[in-house]
Formats: sequence, C-alpha cells, structure tokens
Amino acid sequence: MQLEFLGTGAGSPSKQRNVSSVALRLLEERNAIWLFDVGEATQHQILNTTIRPRKIEKIFITHLHGDHIFGLPGLLSSRSFQGGAAPLTIYGPVGIKRFVTTALQVSESRLSYPLHFVEIDHEGVVFHDRGFTVVTKKLDHKIACYGYRVVEADHPGELQVDKLRELKIPSGPVYGQLKAGKTVVLDDGRTINGQDFIGQPQVGRIVTICGDTRKTENAVELARNADVLVHESTFAKDEAKLARSYYHTTSLQAAEIAKRAGAKRLLLNHISARYAGKAAYQLAYQVRDVFPNTRVVNDFDVIDIPFNK
Amino acid sequence: MQLEFLGTGAGSPSKQRNVSSVALRLLEERNAIWLFDVGEATQHQILNTTIRPRKIEKIFITHLHGDHIFGLPGLLSSRSFQGGAAPLTIYGPVGIKRFVTTALQVSESRLSYPLHFVEIDHEGVVFHDRGFTVVTKKLDHKIACYGYRVVEADHPGELQVDKLRELKIPSGPVYGQLKAGKTVVLDDGRTINGQDFIGQPQVGRIVTICGDTRKTENAVELARNADVLVHESTFAKDEAKLARSYYHTTSLQAAEIAKRAGAKRLLLNHISARYAGKAAYQLAYQVRDVFPNTRVVNDFDVIDIPFNK
Ligand SMILES: [Zn+2]
Ligand SMILES: [Zn+2]
Repeated sequence: MQLEFLGTGAGSPSKQRNVSSVALRLLEERNAIWLFDVGEATQHQILNTTIRPRKIEKIFITHLHGDHIFGLPGLLSSRSFQGGAAPLTIYGPVGIKRFVTTALQVSESRLSYPLHFVEIDHEGVVFHDRGFTVVTKKLDHKIACYGYRVVEADHPGELQVDKLRELKIPSGPVYGQLKAGKTVVLDDGRTINGQDFIGQPQVGRIVTICGDTRKTENAVELARNADVLVHESTFAKDEAKLARSYYHTTSLQAAEIAKRAGAKRLLLNHISARYAGKAAYQLAYQVRDVFPNTRVVNDFDVIDIPFNK
Repeated sequence: MQLEFLGTGAGSPSKQRNVSSVALRLLEERNAIWLFDVGEATQHQILNTTIRPRKIEKIFITHLHGDHIFGLPGLLSSRSFQGGAAPLTIYGPVGIKRFVTTALQVSESRLSYPLHFVEIDHEGVVFHDRGFTVVTKKLDHKIACYGYRVVEADHPGELQVDKLRELKIPSGPVYGQLKAGKTVVLDDGRTINGQDFIGQPQVGRIVTICGDTRKTENAVELARNADVLVHESTFAKDEAKLARSYYHTTSLQAAEIAKRAGAKRLLLNHISARYAGKAAYQLAYQVRDVFPNTRVVNDFDVIDIPFNK
C-alpha cells in the first residue's frame, strides 16, 4: 500500500506542481489503484508513473472545483482507448455525474467498460467490502467537499506452518481446521489446538485524504488514529485569516488536526504556487514542534504505508 | 504571424506529443492569439511558451472529440484566475456551448471576462473584421468537423515617407492626403500626386487549419492558394484503407490536397503514437515527390508565416 502523488498544487497548474490528484496504490491488497481527485492532465502525469489506467478501480472526488475534476473525461476516455474492460466507479458530490456524462456525450465517447456513479449527499459509509471500508464526512469549503477515510480490514493471524512442520504434523485438510482455530486429534493420537499455531492478527491500516477545507472538527474525526493523513496546506502558518476567507487551511492548522486525531503521519498537499522551492518545505518545518512527522509532498512522491508492528 | 504547435498527437496524449492544439500568433497584427482546438493540458503546454492566456482572443474548435476539447474548461478558468478581462469567443460545432457551460456551472467557476459562443451548423464566413476573415467548410469525419481558412486583409501600400523627405516636402496634414492617393499643390507651387508615393500593397496571408478528416474536396477549397495548410496525417502513405475506415487521412492524401489547392506549404499534424521518432519524419519524406514543401510538426514548433514578396 502506497500513496503516489500525481498533483500537489492549488488552483492552477504550474511548472512545479500539477493540480490535484493522489493515487492510493492497492496492488498487493486488491490489484487495484484508487484515485482521489483528478485534476486536468492527471492522465499525463500517469504517463510518467508505473500506474496502468486499466487498474484504476475507483475514483473518489472531494469536491467539484475544476482543479479537482477537469482531468476526468480525458482519463476515462484514455482508459477505454487502452482497452480497459473492468468496471470503474466514481464517488463524488452531486453534480459529478452530470459533468462526466455531458463531457462523454458531447464528445461522443463510448467507453469500453461499465462506468458507475455514487453521488454523495450525506456522511457515512460510501463503500464496504471484505477488504476495505470507505467513510466520508463533510469538510468546510466554499462548495460541498468531502474527506475520505479508507479503513483496511484487519488481517486474521496466519497459520504458522513452519511450527506445525517442526512437530511433523502432516499437511492436509487438518491445516484448514487448525487455521480456523479448532482443536483436532491426529491419527497418531496427539491433540492439537489451532489457537496455539495462529500468529498475531495484523491490524488494518487507515488512510485519510481530505480535500480543500477550512480547519474543521470533521477532519479530526476522519483522521482518528490514521496511519497517514493527507491534508491541504494552501497557506503558511501565519496566514490563518487569509486561509479562513478563502476556505482553506494553514500548515499549522493541519498539524493541529493531525495531533488531535492521533494520526501517525501528516502529508501536506494543495500547495500554492507562491510557496516555491524552499518556501514549500518551510510549511512543514514551521509546524514540526506541533506535529513532528509532517512532510510537504511533491508531484510523483511515493509514500509507503507499512503495517504497524 | 506564426503558428505555434501546442499538441500534434492523435487520440491520446503520449510523452512525445500532446493532444490537439495550434496557436495562430497574431501579436503584431492584432495583439492577439487565436487557438485552434484545445485538447487536455493545452494550458500546461502554454506554460512552456511565451503565450499569455489573457491574449487569447478567439478559439476555433474543429470538432467535439475529447482530444480536441477537453482542455477548454481548465484553460478558460486559468485565464480568469490570471485576471484576464478581455472578451473571448469560442467558435465550434453545435454542442460546444453545452460542454463548456456545464463544466463551468458544475465547478461553480465564475469567469472574470465575457465568454461568447458562435455555434457552427453551416459553412461560410464565421468571422470578419477589417483585418481578418475566417471561412469554414465541413470536412469528412465521424462527427461534424469543420476546417478553417483564415484570410488576412490586404495591407494597402505604405506612404514612402523617405522619398517625400528627399524632395523636401514638409510633413504635416498633406502627408495624409498623399497617403489617400490624392494630388495636392504645395505652398511652393509644386504639384504632387500621392499615387507616385505609395508602395506596393501587401497581399494578405492565408492560413488553413483542418481538423480530423478523410480526404475531402472541401479541404482543397479551404486551402486554395494558402500560404500554409495544416492538415492531419494520422496514417502513413500506404494506409489509405485504414485511414478511410477510421475517418482519417494519409500523408500522401494530404500532400495531394496541398498540391491541388496550390498551397505553398504543408504542415502535417495529428500524428499517431505508432509513428515515433524517425517514423514520424518518414510521413513527410514519403510524399515530397508529390508536394516538396511538406513537414511533420512537433509540439512547440513555431512556424513563421512571412508576407509574400
Ligand atoms: Zn483546490
Ligand atoms: Zn483527433
């Protein structure tokens, strides 16, 4: 599981940063990529990565501002052009379906795969299966904006096959019973309790990705105990007034949210072009006394999200 | 007057070529830029040129396929973000207004300048003023597609001021009368005929920009005596059957059109990713026996269009 940042800028593209998009790489977990926001030229950014558009299974849109959605029609078309056949689902605020379908209709684009929409108009669980649950809460932006909390299901402990083999317990259907935690009597008369041969369960990881927002309590709730919180930092530490009037957050506010949520790591994105080069890194340095594990991400950064030991 | 190619590829963006867009630079002629087609990430390409979005006065769309229009909403928004105030007019097939207004509405983008649409549903003059006339004709593509012929007005001959000064004719209102071709009697009694002091009129230039199309007679008519014909060449010389079935043109067909039209120069664009590197240049070399002044253009090529001597 990794996060790959495809666009980390705010508002308009610059030479340094493209407009918003983040990929959550779930190749080992479900052989899939999930995207969060698709600013213009996200498909161009993808050309410089190992991501294959046909692997994109879900797209979550935080809000409908152009710098977060104008890359959708092109990406969807190219995924089709490249022969993608697997279904794709887009989650986003009401209006996302109208935007995409109008673009595809006017351009007479026929997709080679089924495209589904889940339009969001309230908080709660927007997706759930055996592997993952995605929960959304409203943020505080000029237009409706949702943050996403991706919760991986806990992995049950693995059967410790090496230990069983050491005791010369022959493999076969009995391994299945032991894995299920049952007690079995072997042909040689030994009684074996499966519970003794199952490793520690692995706690699932939590990744929270917020969209454009003012500092809001809901971001804290979305980020509770998260392994990673991706939060916007359109403004620097001392620009709280500006941030508020433009419906954005400062780096310090983002750090306070990460701290209160008990998140393990904070990644700052949606960086304004006015913070170029070193000034961008300052956004993180300035707040490390509040939340030490803070980093400003750049386009094409890949951040690994390991299991907790 | 120059053509600056912003995207010369076909269908999907590649690392080598972006999707379609050409700028006609009219900075000396009218302090303006005209764009022909706006594929996704045209605004990103513009970041690597000297073009300022606020100078874009008109946008002509050949057809509504995504690789020719998906960059419009982002470009329009960024032009506004950068404080562009001058009006902008978009010309294109019926449907272009619905696409753009839906994108701007859904994203709640309010532009800082007036945006006008001229939806085209028949051939003829789509724009005319003192400096330029733009004529359109239908091409032969899968969906409605229009080619554009941009005709610069002839420049009247300039008053030969140096020659007048040599004769010690004092400057003043009399110069205006002479420039208008009138005969005037000077204070010193000399009679001067303005006609003798006006240089050759300069014949206006003609630039023809075609969109995606099969070989069609209308392209010949649009390109009649053109200084430059920009024509697609999605397929190589020997792929006429494929070209026909995909509603595109081969390089040879484009050369035949340029020849029959009596155009002076042929620029091939809309190059498929399957012709990379040398194979792309072959598209032009292969047809130079039919039309010698042929060239495959690349992204960021700038082609000067001088007056005819
Ligand atoms: Zn934004
Ligand atoms: Zn095309």
